[in-house]
Amino acid sequence: MQTVMREAELAAFLEREFPQVKDDFAIERLTGDGIVVRLKVAERHLRPGGTVSGPSIFALADVVVYLAILARLGPVALAVTTNGGIDFLRKPVAGTDLIGEGRLLKIGRVLAVGDVLIRSDGMEDPVARASMTYSIPPNR
Amino acid sequence: MQTVMREAELAAFLEREFPQVKDDFAIERLTGDGIVVRLKVAERHLRPGGTVSGPSIFALADVVVYLAILARLGPVALAVTTNGGIDFLRKPVAGTDLIGEGRLLKIGRVLAVGDVLIRSDGMEDPVARASMTYSIPPNR
Amino acid sequence: MQTVMREAELAAFLEREFPQVKDDFAIERLTGDGIVVRLKVAERHLRPGGTVSGPSIFALADVVVYLAILARLGPVALAVTTNGGIDFLRKPVAGTDLIGEGRLLKIGRVLAVGDVLIRSDGMEDPVARASMTYSIPPNR
Amino acid sequence: MQTVMREAELAAFLEREFPQVKDDFAIERLTGDGIVVRLKVAERHLRPGGTVSGPSIFALADVVVYLAILARLGPVALAVTTNGGIDFLRKPVAGTDLIGEGRLLKIGRVLAVGDVLIRSDGMEDPVARASMTYSIPPNR
Repeated sequence: MQTVMREAELAAFLEREFPQVKDDFAIERLTGDGIVVRLKVAERHLRPGGTVSGPSIFALADVVVYLAILARLGPVALAVTTNGGIDFLRKPVAGTDLIGEGRLLKIGRVLAVGDVLIRSDGMEDPVARASMTYSIPPNR
Repeated sequence: MQTVMREAELAAFLEREFPQVKDDFAIERLTGDGIVVRLKVAERHLRPGGTVSGPSIFALADVVVYLAILARLGPVALAVTTNGGIDFLRKPVAGTDLIGEGRLLKIGRVLAVGDVLIRSDGMEDPVARASMTYSIPPNR
Repeated sequence: MQTVMREAELAAFLEREFPQVKDDFAIERLTGDGIVVRLKVAERHLRPGGTVSGPSIFALADVVVYLAILARLGPVALAVTTNGGIDFLRKPVAGTDLIGEGRLLKIGRVLAVGDVLIRSDGMEDPVARASMTYSIPPNR
Repeated sequence: MQTVMREAELAAFLEREFPQVKDDFAIERLTGDGIVVRLKVAERHLRPGGTVSGPSIFALADVVVYLAILARLGPVALAVTTNGGIDFLRKPVAGTDLIGEGRLLKIGRVLAVGDVLIRSDGMEDPVARASMTYSIPPNR
């Protein structure tokens, strides 16, 4: 995957443009076809029993695909999610960060699609699987 | 739809069991086949430009189907989301609550399925459409 | 919903452009926000036990949203499905046609989204729920 | 992945139990975490322009996950699809078989989940991505 933004630039972009969530996520690394992002699990992400909430897992999947698109298209891209699908597979390990590993499957003229596997840090079996479609604005 | 919990009981359950999100949602009313829930939009739900974040909209859809199931099965049900699908259709109106109107399509032995239309309060055109599947625990 | 094609025109279009499936479907009627289409269940749609196959139910959902879009945009629209999500809720009644009732939730510049409830003819409880996104070509 | 049925047994099962579709699919091979299946594209799978129909692609994804589950659980399992999600990414190459490569993400007590990448035979870029959930019957 040819990238136009690297990890540090993506982190700076996230911090500048998304102040509401910048403390939630850490960019681990770009990969050959995507990106790996960490959800720094905190009290506000939890549900009774210590499990990470579904919307927090959805948010991780969403940001993974968003950052993978930015890495390819650059910061000018004002992409918006048009569709998301998620399967919750297992209960996350309590008190442990989540790691989302995403890959881009398509970057088209108007749509980009990626999918994501989410695991508790250090575990093999996935906690969730998600796919996200973004609409790419014209005139970028 | 025959219910075993009414609006006030559902609100009390939400407040007691989900302290992290109790301030986010207000139960508007039970309907013939489901429930209407309000997302009380606040700064923490927003993204740049004043739009409500995708994960916040997902969270509303998730809680709508959850509460519709509880209304039917009662508070003993420890249901967990197994699948969610969401289409983001339009940008929400800035500074306006979101209203999620859900209906149960199936309450089976092991799975319950519902879908939800989400609108900016007072608007006709939907902001999002979502469907959620919950796993119903045995021995309830 | 303002339409530019009515039932007879849609049926003629389907017969002319989709000879492979024209015998599978019958257009029942346009509705205020969508369309009702019948799957004329035959041997080729069945699985062991007499149930209608999942892909046949998916095909009905797909054609319902496609025809709802055509009714609005006219026969020039070369729309293609970009995303489909389907929940299979109950076993269809054996030897009975399926009725798909769809509504358009959005007709945008580049995307159209609709959802569909599918029932065995004459039954109340739905067999399946589906949502479909179509990409609308430019320069139409 | 520990399997209880190998390629030849799966093919025999498909031929015996699913006579309606046995000519559509060929089992290529079991993999470490799933299976590879070929859709032998014929006239009946096509749409105008020579492209493979969406429902035929959905059918391939569905059978991929079904066979991956059978390989693990054996022929007694009467699994049924409860949810399917599919992204159509690119137009398939005309006159070319489709290859579906699936992996199981979860085999639980009541649900099994897998996802599938579908490509035109010999091509790198995927034509579609799908995920499927199956309900596993009790007392198996």
